[in-house]
Amino acid sequence: MTDAATRYTLTLSCADRVGIAAAVNMFLAEHQSAVLGASYYVDESHRRFFARQEIVPSPSFTLDAFRQRFAPIARAFQMEWTASEQRQKKRVVILVSKFGHCLHDLFERWQAGELPADIPCVISNHEAQREFVERHGVPFHHVPIDADNKPAAYEHIGRLFEDARGDVMVLARFMQVIPEPLCAAYPGRIINIHHSFLPSFAGARPYHQAHQRGVKLVGATSHYVTPALDQGPIIEQDVIRVSHADSADRIVQLGRDIEKSVLARSLLYHLEDRVLIHGNHTVVFR
Amino acid sequence: MTDAATRYTLTLSCADRVGIAAAVNMFLAEHQSAVLGASYYVDESHRRFFARQEIVPSPSFTLDAFRQRFAPIARAFQMEWTASEQRQKKRVVILVSKFGHCLHDLFERWQAGELPADIPCVISNHEAQREFVERHGVPFHHVPIDADNKPAAYEHIGRLFEDARGDVMVLARFMQVIPEPLCAAYPGRIINIHHSFLPSFAGARPYHQAHQRGVKLVGATSHYVTPALDQGPIIEQDVIRVSHADSADRIVQLGRDIEKSVLARSLLYHLEDRVLIHGNHTVVFR
Amino acid sequence: MTDAATRYTLTLSCADRVGIAAAVNMFLAEHQSAVLGASYYVDESHRRFFARQEIVPSPSFTLDAFRQRFAPIARAFQMEWTASEQRQKKRVVILVSKFGHCLHDLFERWQAGELPADIPCVISNHEAQREFVERHGVPFHHVPIDADNKPAAYEHIGRLFEDARGDVMVLARFMQVIPEPLCAAYPGRIINIHHSFLPSFAGARPYHQAHQRGVKLVGATSHYVTPALDQGPIIEQDVIRVSHADSADRIVQLGRDIEKSVLARSLLYHLEDRVLIHGNHTVVFR
Amino acid sequence: MTDAATRYTLTLSCADRVGIAAAVNMFLAEHQSAVLGASYYVDESHRRFFARQEIVPSPSFTLDAFRQRFAPIARAFQMEWTASEQRQKKRVVILVSKFGHCLHDLFERWQAGELPADIPCVISNHEAQREFVERHGVPFHHVPIDADNKPAAYEHIGRLFEDARGDVMVLARFMQVIPEPLCAAYPGRIINIHHSFLPSFAGARPYHQAHQRGVKLVGATSHYVTPALDQGPIIEQDVIRVSHADSADRIVQLGRDIEKSVLARSLLYHLEDRVLIHGNHTVVFR
Repeated sequence: MTDAATRYTLTLSCADRVGIAAAVNMFLAEHQSAVLGASYYVDESHRRFFARQEIVPSPSFTLDAFRQRFAPIARAFQMEWTASEQRQKKRVVILVSKFGHCLHDLFERWQAGELPADIPCVISNHEAQREFVERHGVPFHHVPIDADNKPAAYEHIGRLFEDARGDVMVLARFMQVIPEPLCAAYPGRIINIHHSFLPSFAGARPYHQAHQRGVKLVGATSHYVTPALDQGPIIEQDVIRVSHADSADRIVQLGRDIEKSVLARSLLYHLEDRVLIHGNHTVVFR
Repeated sequence: MTDAATRYTLTLSCADRVGIAAAVNMFLAEHQSAVLGASYYVDESHRRFFARQEIVPSPSFTLDAFRQRFAPIARAFQMEWTASEQRQKKRVVILVSKFGHCLHDLFERWQAGELPADIPCVISNHEAQREFVERHGVPFHHVPIDADNKPAAYEHIGRLFEDARGDVMVLARFMQVIPEPLCAAYPGRIINIHHSFLPSFAGARPYHQAHQRGVKLVGATSHYVTPALDQGPIIEQDVIRVSHADSADRIVQLGRDIEKSVLARSLLYHLEDRVLIHGNHTVVFR
Repeated sequence: MTDAATRYTLTLSCADRVGIAAAVNMFLAEHQSAVLGASYYVDESHRRFFARQEIVPSPSFTLDAFRQRFAPIARAFQMEWTASEQRQKKRVVILVSKFGHCLHDLFERWQAGELPADIPCVISNHEAQREFVERHGVPFHHVPIDADNKPAAYEHIGRLFEDARGDVMVLARFMQVIPEPLCAAYPGRIINIHHSFLPSFAGARPYHQAHQRGVKLVGATSHYVTPALDQGPIIEQDVIRVSHADSADRIVQLGRDIEKSVLARSLLYHLEDRVLIHGNHTVVFR
Repeated sequence: MTDAATRYTLTLSCADRVGIAAAVNMFLAEHQSAVLGASYYVDESHRRFFARQEIVPSPSFTLDAFRQRFAPIARAFQMEWTASEQRQKKRVVILVSKFGHCLHDLFERWQAGELPADIPCVISNHEAQREFVERHGVPFHHVPIDADNKPAAYEHIGRLFEDARGDVMVLARFMQVIPEPLCAAYPGRIINIHHSFLPSFAGARPYHQAHQRGVKLVGATSHYVTPALDQGPIIEQDVIRVSHADSADRIVQLGRDIEKSVLARSLLYHLEDRVLIHGNHTVVFR
């Protein structure tokens, strides 16, 4: 039995044709389930239909039953789809190096109830954040990474993620390139924050590149990680104004705020099933 | 017969219950009409359902037929609803006083194809903008307004709007209070731009009030006109940063840009049937 | 003796006349001290001169010597002025009630080196933030406030501020009205964050007022506290976009981010001697 | 004789040393001239001093006298410097191709008194904007450009600019690469608006590149033209939010607003002598 506060989120995409929305909404009506909100979008150039729908299920309509009975419809339209209960929190594993500002911001939001997530553990190639993490009662795993142990180290990280039953991996300023096997294992499940307005200043030391070029805005970009470095589907971007008077160090400091807010927003979109991926693009139903 | 570029926009609101979306989408599927995009929103505190849906109709499904066949569904759910063809432009009558910047901006966008509208005429209580308006081939009506002739003047304006078969009246810095009969005649069809971030600085000389108070941002607000001055449902707002160094005159100048963009955006939302009104609130499906 | 990293900040305001900048800069040149940056502004309507100047003093020019030798010039022009060494941190006493987000944000920035300040203590009318504060090694004072003990409680707070040799008091969501004696004792030294875009929605529950009115942006305002509630000189403001779909609770959550960033920015301006007060206005040299 | 509204603007840059500001301000005081505002900035890494100062001269202190008497000081410090009277308008020659939106926006602002400039002529490689330009009483020169006549065409443009006694050339979406001789002849005097957030998407069709990459913000960049295409010193940048639902055509349309405002702001900064160039960077005293 569901209770009065139960809400499901359904996301789906499939080749566009007449009748998709009718099939979905007839299904809901037949099961005495109400629509709380929905967004449909058709990418006309790729003839593909995208949808996100929030649902108030009837008391007898469990999530398992929903999935089971919706499956034939999904099959008929060859949908990629997900159905989740909003109160069932996703499990977020955070990877961090030395810089703690994004980690601290995520923890602060998590504790304030802004991020509907569980954080089963934090993984780092440094010890710097151990005390902070453990103080919050979250397990901290130190996995040293150097030139010689990379494959083993990332295997270890993959195992820790599996053991934690992680749903999504967040690189909260994890200053390492994720090797291809790990990218390939979790497509659309690893979120990175890059400290530039991509595609400007991909690669290392983007704020210093920006200062060198004399730009008047610097930014940050969150994206899903793919084997192509800094090339994955972009989830969110934002910028902040800088001036001639701002040193490279000051730009780094100003940029921290944008990194924090862009990463937090994109993680929230992901946790609320607002992001659908298609090729190298995202559809973000805000 | 419709052609390949025909698109309908359906908007509706009604008391919330199970089956609204199902009824709408079944109707579309039965008429071989595709969904191009949709937004549904339920206001839980008022238990009301709002929807905007873009539709690619089947070749035989004219707008008249659509309206005729959809009417029974709308009746069953007691919907407030509209159905329009996207290429069928709304008729925008612009009222202006002396300041031309919003008028000029709307004309520039209109001529650039940004505003899907016809402008059958411009009405003003001054002659200042006649040359500009007529140069663009648009009729200009001068209706002087003074303390003695108000009721007659606004009756005249109402007749001009009717004669022009106006769909929406835009007060593009029309520095007069619209009397109640005109407000009451066109609810949700008169858009005003107020040069402050309402509810701050309602009334006269808002930029000077803002300068006096020493605020660090000034703004503009577009809203539907109701009998209560500056109290109607807000469509759009935006702000711009000012500093101690900006004089009241300079703030007026900076504010012009925000007035122009807020008014243009809100008019576009209106023309594209993105704004649904409920009480003193708007639902804006962007 | 000063060292290579010594920097002074001089701020001043006085009645405008020819020769102020000449006197200041001749004084610096005579003492072999370099200008690192400066901003001068004349408020023409009040005929008042405002300046902020960053200085690299000669090795033998101590801050005490600077103050002593500059005093006659300041007297001659009847200046209000301050001179400080940039590395000499101001002492910030934070007052907080139950909501911790602004406090946590300030601590996070403080520990990251973004805020050049010492925090001698935190004062609260609740126990909720004790653990957080003490964990950072900062003393926490609980001063209960109720209808019966107000004068005594605020006397206590004033004594704690004095004992801590506080330079500035920050109300980081301190949900109490500061009584007039305390306001009067520290003009220009108490900073409050109000959770609305003042003068909109002064008073209680501003986000709920904003939601009620259906605004499209909500904001926050930092200001110096004066006896007139929510009427003091504004230091900084910012806004964030909201929509019809955001509940009052969600607006509260979105607003937290703006409160945090507006308060942090205005405190930084204050700590860096960027804010000069004149009447109910601020000059902020950014 | 000057009158009460006479204001001079002095800009200068030179190698940093003690005494620059003293020399400038003593000079002003000796000539009974008041400081209305000033900004000084030292680029510590290049050890260079930059200044912009607004001055109310004494009644007998003409601009010619100012320049003559200031010259020895400028020489002593090896300054690059300019002195101008604020009411003496700079002469802006606008180059445009077919797209008129930036041209129209500049003309609208010019006529509203926002741009303190004279526009002696507009030059175009197309006839499209002739009617618009001539209607405003401004001469229009059509200079066709094709693969065969480039050197001659740009010589012609150079002559027209000289004949018009142009101070600054504005490329208001002039879709041609300026050849090196013209760039070299007017360093710091040709302003271009590029329709992307440089260095992202340099080169052709930037909005389509942006759409292809799936970015969430698009921008515009104004810069001084140098022989290296899209590489000159950046004056101003801004961005606007786009989403998955915006087609490339819609992004082009949204981008127009940012192009207009970025170009207008950067031209105003230039006209008000707020931009100082150093190498490939600008110092913009706002």
